[in-house]
Order: sequence, then C-alpha cells, then structure tokens
Amino acid sequence: MSAEEHTQAGVEPDGPVATGAPRPFFRSRWAPAPEHVRELGAGAGLPAGFRAAGVVCGIKPSGNPDLGLLVCDAPGPVSAARFTTTGAPAAPVLVSQQRCRLGALRAVLANSGCANAATGARGLDDAAKTQGAAAIAVGVDPDEVALASTGAISHYLPVEAILKGILEARPQLRADGDADFQRAIQTTDSFEKRASLEVRLASGTARLSAQCKGAGMISPRFATMLCFIETDAALSPETADLLLGVCVKRSFDRASVDGQLSTNDTAIMICSGAGGVSIAPASEDELRFGEALDALLRQLAIMLVADGEGAGRIARVVVRGGHLPSAEAAARAVANSPLVKTALNGGDPNWGRIAQAVGAALPGTAPLAMDISIEGIQVCAAGAAVPHDEAALQQAARGLELEYEIGLPGEGAETEVFFSDLSTRYVNVNAEYTT
Amino acid sequence: MSAEEHTQAGVEPDGPVATGAPRPFFRSRWAPAPEHVRELGAGAGLPAGFRAAGVVCGIKPSGNPDLGLLVCDAPGPVSAARFTTTGAPAAPVLVSQQRCRLGALRAVLANSGCANAATGARGLDDAAKTQGAAAIAVGVDPDEVALASTGAISHYLPVEAILKGILEARPQLRADGDADFQRAIQTTDSFEKRASLEVRLASGTARLSAQCKGAGMISPRFATMLCFIETDAALSPETADLLLGVCVKRSFDRASVDGQLSTNDTAIMICSGAGGVSIAPASEDELRFGEALDALLRQLAIMLVADGEGAGRIARVVVRGGHLPSAEAAARAVANSPLVKTALNGGDPNWGRIAQAVGAALPGTAPLAMDISIEGIQVCAAGAAVPHDEAALQQAARGLELEYEIGLPGEGAETEVFFSDLSTRYVNVNAEYTT
Repeated sequence: MSAEEHTQAGVEPDGPVATGAPRPFFRSRWAPAPEHVRELGAGAGLPAGFRAAGVVCGIKPSGNPDLGLLVCDAPGPVSAARFTTTGAPAAPVLVSQQRCRLGALRAVLANSGCANAATGARGLDDAAKTQGAAAIAVGVDPDEVALASTGAISHYLPVEAILKGILEARPQLRADGDADFQRAIQTTDSFEKRASLEVRLASGTARLSAQCKGAGMISPRFATMLCFIETDAALSPETADLLLGVCVKRSFDRASVDGQLSTNDTAIMICSGAGGVSIAPASEDELRFGEALDALLRQLAIMLVADGEGAGRIARVVVRGGHLPSAEAAARAVANSPLVKTALNGGDPNWGRIAQAVGAALPGTAPLAMDISIEGIQVCAAGAAVPHDEAALQQAARGLELEYEIGLPGEGAETEVFFSDLSTRYVNVNAEYTT
Repeated sequence: MSAEEHTQAGVEPDGPVATGAPRPFFRSRWAPAPEHVRELGAGAGLPAGFRAAGVVCGIKPSGNPDLGLLVCDAPGPVSAARFTTTGAPAAPVLVSQQRCRLGALRAVLANSGCANAATGARGLDDAAKTQGAAAIAVGVDPDEVALASTGAISHYLPVEAILKGILEARPQLRADGDADFQRAIQTTDSFEKRASLEVRLASGTARLSAQCKGAGMISPRFATMLCFIETDAALSPETADLLLGVCVKRSFDRASVDGQLSTNDTAIMICSGAGGVSIAPASEDELRFGEALDALLRQLAIMLVADGEGAGRIARVVVRGGHLPSAEAAARAVANSPLVKTALNGGDPNWGRIAQAVGAALPGTAPLAMDISIEGIQVCAAGAAVPHDEAALQQAARGLELEYEIGLPGEGAETEVFFSDLSTRYVNVNAEYTT
C-alpha cells in the first residue's frame, strides 16, 4: 500500500486518541515542551519572511501532491543543513552539498515519489536542471536553492513534470502554504508531522516552524526523512549550524524504524531574521532557542518512529555506563533487533532478547555485568536474572510507549535510541508490493 | 508456536519436495558435494568409536526429547571447538571454555528447552553440576565433558531433571543413537539437520557425521545453533582445530536468519581415530578431509538459513572488491536489511534496497561506484541503474534460492553471507507468544 493509498483510505494510526480537540504537538514524555514554548494552531502559517506551496506535478501515480517549494523573502537569510552519511547519497543530496551555499539558502525545492538515487551522472544533471529552474522561478541564485527528494530508488527524475510543477507552484507561494508544502513532501506517512511554535526569549518572541516527513520504508517508495525548519529570528551562520547540528544529533540521529539509513535524508533550517529578534552567540537566548529547537526535533523524531510502517508500540532504549562507542553499539543493537522489536509488538516483556542483543553488540566483554530495567522494573542485575513483580512487568509491557534502561559497567556514557516495533503489517507492506 | 508444536503438527517447510525418495543431503548449489564424498543413509549410525542417546528429561513442557548425550569410547580422542563471540555467553559456553580440555573431549551433554543464559553464578554452578554428573555416568573426567544448551534465556537450568535424564540416557547410548541425539537438541527446527558421510582418502576411507540444530528465534525459546561433528579418522589436535576453525568460518559464520548472535552457539568436532585412517598435517588427505568437512558444514549452514522461522526464500550475497572489512560490512548489511529481506520474501527484485543497504554500510565513500547483479542479471553499474531485461529479472526473483552479487571499487576482497527472507510468519511467531 502506498502512502497515497494510506491517506485516501483514511488510515489514522497515530495512537488511540482520535476524537475531540486536536492533539497537542508535544505528546511524548520523551520530548516535553519547554516552558517558554507555546504551540500555535495548524493554521498559524510560517514565520515572517517565508512562503511555501505544494502542488501536484504528476510524479506520484496517485495524483497526490508531490512537489513542494519553500522560499525565504528576507534580504539576508542564514541557514544550516545536515544530510545522510550514506556512501550512496542521492543526486539531490550531492547537488545540495556540492553546489549550494548551505549557510545562505533562500529556497528549497522538494519532491516526493522519486528519490533520484542510484541514477549516476544523469541524476546529477537532472537535479541541477530543477535547481536552476527553481532559482529562476523565485528570483534567486541556483546555489541558494537546496534540493530534497524522496521516493523510489533507481528511477530517473521526471524533469519535465517538475519544471511544470515549479511554474505552477510559484503563484501559489503563501505565508500559510506550510500545510500544502507538508502534503507535497509526504510519501508513506500516515499522519502530518508539522508544528508552528512561539518561543519567548529575553529579547522578544520568535516564531519557529517545521515540516517533516518519514515513516517506514515501502517498496519501491524508499521512504526518507526530510525536515525543513523556519524561524523569523536572526542567527549567525555559526549559531544556526551549531544548533541544528546538536539538535539533529539528539533527535533524528536517535530514531530508527528499521535501522535502514536512507540515501536522501535531509534537514534544513532557514532563519529569515524578519521577526526582529536577534539571537547572539553564547547568550541566554541562544540557550532558550536551542531548547525549543531541541524539543521540536525530538518530538518530530518520535513521530517518525510512531509512524514507522505498521508500528503499534514505540520504545526508547537508554544505555548508561561504559564508554560511548559501547553504549551506542548496545543501544543500536537493541533498537534494531528483530527479536526485541517483535516482542515489543506483542507486548511481551521478553528481556532475554535485550540481554542477547547487548551481548552480541559487545564481543570480548564476557561475562558482561549488565543491568536491565523495563519501565523502571529491574529484571537483570550484573548479568543475571533478579526476582521482580512479573504481573507488573506484563502490565507495563502492554503500554504504547516503553522504556528500556540498560546499565553497563563503568561510568560516563549515556545514549538513547527511539524505535518502533516490527509488525506483520511492516512485512506485508514491504513484501507484497512487487515492482 | 513452539518447536515441539511444529513437529507435532507435521509442519514440513523444507522446500517443495515432499514425496518419494529421501532428498539428498547436499541439495544446494552453494555447497556441492566433493567427488570423494558419499552420502550414507539416515540410519547409517555414527562413525566407529561413538555412541549417542537422546531422552525426555522434562525440560520442555511438550514432553519432547530434550537431553542428548554423546560419548567417544576411543582411547585417545582429539577434539576442537568453537563458541559464540557474544559478550553475554551462556553458562554452558563459559564452563566449556574455562573448565574443559577442548582438544581432548570424550563426551558432550546437550540440552534443549533452556539456554542457561543470563543466570549468573548460579547458572555456572548448575552447569558444573550437570558436567560432573555426566562425567561420572560415562566414566570420564569432568573436564572431558563439553556442555551445550539451547532454549529460553533468563531461566535457571532444571538440574534435577537433567541428572535424572543423564541416568536414563546412559543405558541407551548406541552407535546408531545419532537420530535420537538430533531430536533431543532441536528446538524450533522444523526439519532434521544431520548427515552421515563417507570420505575417500588416499590412506583409506573415513566416516564423518554431524548433528546440527538452529532455526529462527522464537520467544522465549531463544534458538541457537549447535553442531556436533564426529569422525573415526585420527587427527592431531592442531589439525582438528585448524580444519574446524576454517570450515566454521566458511559456513556457520556466513549464515544469518535475523542477524541475532546467540548466547549459546557451539560447534564441537570429536575425532575417535577408531576407523584406522590417520590424517597427517599438510597432507593430501588433510586437504580432502577438509573439503568434505567444508561441504558438510556449508550445507548445514544453508539448512539453518532455509529453516529460519517462516523462511520461504533464501539468498546468498557475494561481495567482491574493496578491502575485506568493507566487503564484510556490505554483505552483512544486505543480509540483515529488513527491506532486502521483505523484498526477497515477496519475490520482488527491488535492487534499490540493496544499493541503500550497501551505501549505508559504507559511510565516507560517496559517491560509491557499486555494481549489482541479481541471478547474473546486472541492474546497476558504477552506482547507476543500467538497462536490463525486466521480465527476466522478475522471473529470477521468484526462485527459491537467489544470488545477489555486489562489486565494490578495487580488487582483492571477496565474501559471502547466506540469509533467509523476512516473513509475516517470523513476526507472528516472535510477537504473538507472550511469556
């Protein structure tokens, strides 16, 4: 089932709440909203200095929106970007990295339905053509236009359709075009991942918005995480880059649906400075803005995981102790273990699988004196089972958000990974489609 | 569903052949039988110098056999062993490694239904008790008895049941007890993994047998791979260790059902020398015996993969080029990718997922000029899609054994991994059971 079919069928797997008032954006205990952050409604629009649009250009067979354009109209915007670390990056990633002024972007052209990955020199040429067309359409230089694509790997970009789409999108650019832009970048997403926030700072109030896509991986619609962040605050390029880097590391870098790094992951933040608030490096305001950005991206990352194909339950694994590479390896091993993920899916507190995954990740440490707790109930101490309230554990394992804590010998490191379960629906969606 | 339930229900997922003559043991194109190797029937029994038994001692609730005993009666047997590299090895692994003369084993005590893993100091004591009891029962020293367990992690070993079972097994030790022994070590296996071979050497004919277990991982019956190999040839401890080491590396080390390293993996070879053939180091016979052992263990490894929980299709990924760590990382990434595995399950030649998995495994190499072929049909050259016969590719992807070949830039390395697909049955079996 494609993303578009999901949307058409009205699938709404975003947890059990479905009626009444809109759910708050900050809905996970793992990403509480800072006190100085206020959620604006879905119709609040973009921060000052931004316009966006989303149109149907014909890449997706479903006829759903598939081309998004985001423009910053402010005179001297500042930006920052992060990309996938894969050895096989898609053409839009390479073009954005190699041909853009990533600290001074004025526009983003994003499409869904085609990843433009594994397309070689032709893919690069195709991407460059769309970059040039978007630049002309919105009146900026090509190196001020970042590209982002998501969809099937190994297919060439339908350049003509995109050029037509750019012309169609241009007159539709609006300050409240973020909802259309969001729809145009979605693929297999079954719910919207978008926020408009107000951030109270000492020097005034800033606006902060983001549109994000990402879910499971559906053949051949290779799902990817894209995130575009806008603020009307003024930041130096160094500050923007620092804050985006730190916050991406604490959010998207900590999320795993199935351990499969994309060819197209892209996160871009553009700061228009049109709101009148300027954030000085190393100031209290930088800290507070950073806290808001951190909460925003963490909640979005948790939403990516919760929308993982077929996800019923999600979990956070926290590893403390040892040195960082070990803690990181252990956390990733648990988050990506099909045995842990199927147990999570079944509401089964099968902690032997957690012990197995940690042990497998840390060869040469035998016998490893690990501790394991599930939802605060300790089940393993120094590598051996400990008596615990089995009924309470069974009950805890049936929650929708589970927390696994793992202690390794020694002090110092601490890391976390958010992950989804593994369901038959994930397999069906990814196995039953044939190219 | 438990392994025992599988057997009772008569599940027989071992490929499409079900009637008529018994299938040959060497049935995969990836493990052809050497010319000097002849398959003996299932009733051929063990090589000279060995006896085995399998009994019900009451660990498994199903009442199926769960305790196996293997004894070598020859005066000066030689042996070799390999174990899991996990940081969290089970007690029987630690006891075998630390308290056994691994080059001079005379017996193996193996149980299914309980892994005796994550059981701390008590687990070690329990294992040592059963080792001592087995030694007394068969009249050897405790350090000549290796232990192997498979089953649920985090449960303590039912020592009393095992002691009773040892007494029951002793009078049942027989030269043709290998079939009973095989049944006693199985957990979630849905078919037997056992062979009796005759190996023609320059200096005479040697017998070579093996009993092996392993399938998917079923909660909470943590499946493990165990393999016990017997020969009546005489080998030096160094030769035995060398050959077992090389052949394990080319077989069990290259197999993955779900990328989940067990706490209990164990492979033990015992050479009775009772057959009159002696294999000198660096001789032509060593080479021929090694070829036979290699084919035996490779076929068993392929059978493990084919019996992976819910497996419908299996595949081999071969990576050539680059340096070995890169080739190994790429092969493992493909073999363990849930996207590649679901595509394999669905008979979908979705090679974009292969490119994604390889790219993700090799950060810092962008843009990576990889080649990809499926069943000899090249689909990607130097990182970009190439025209190919789409109908032939679709047809090839529907076979039961698929071969993926990946070329990396540069010369030198070559590696392979055998793996199973990922099916809804794997998820059901592992998610629906609750402890």
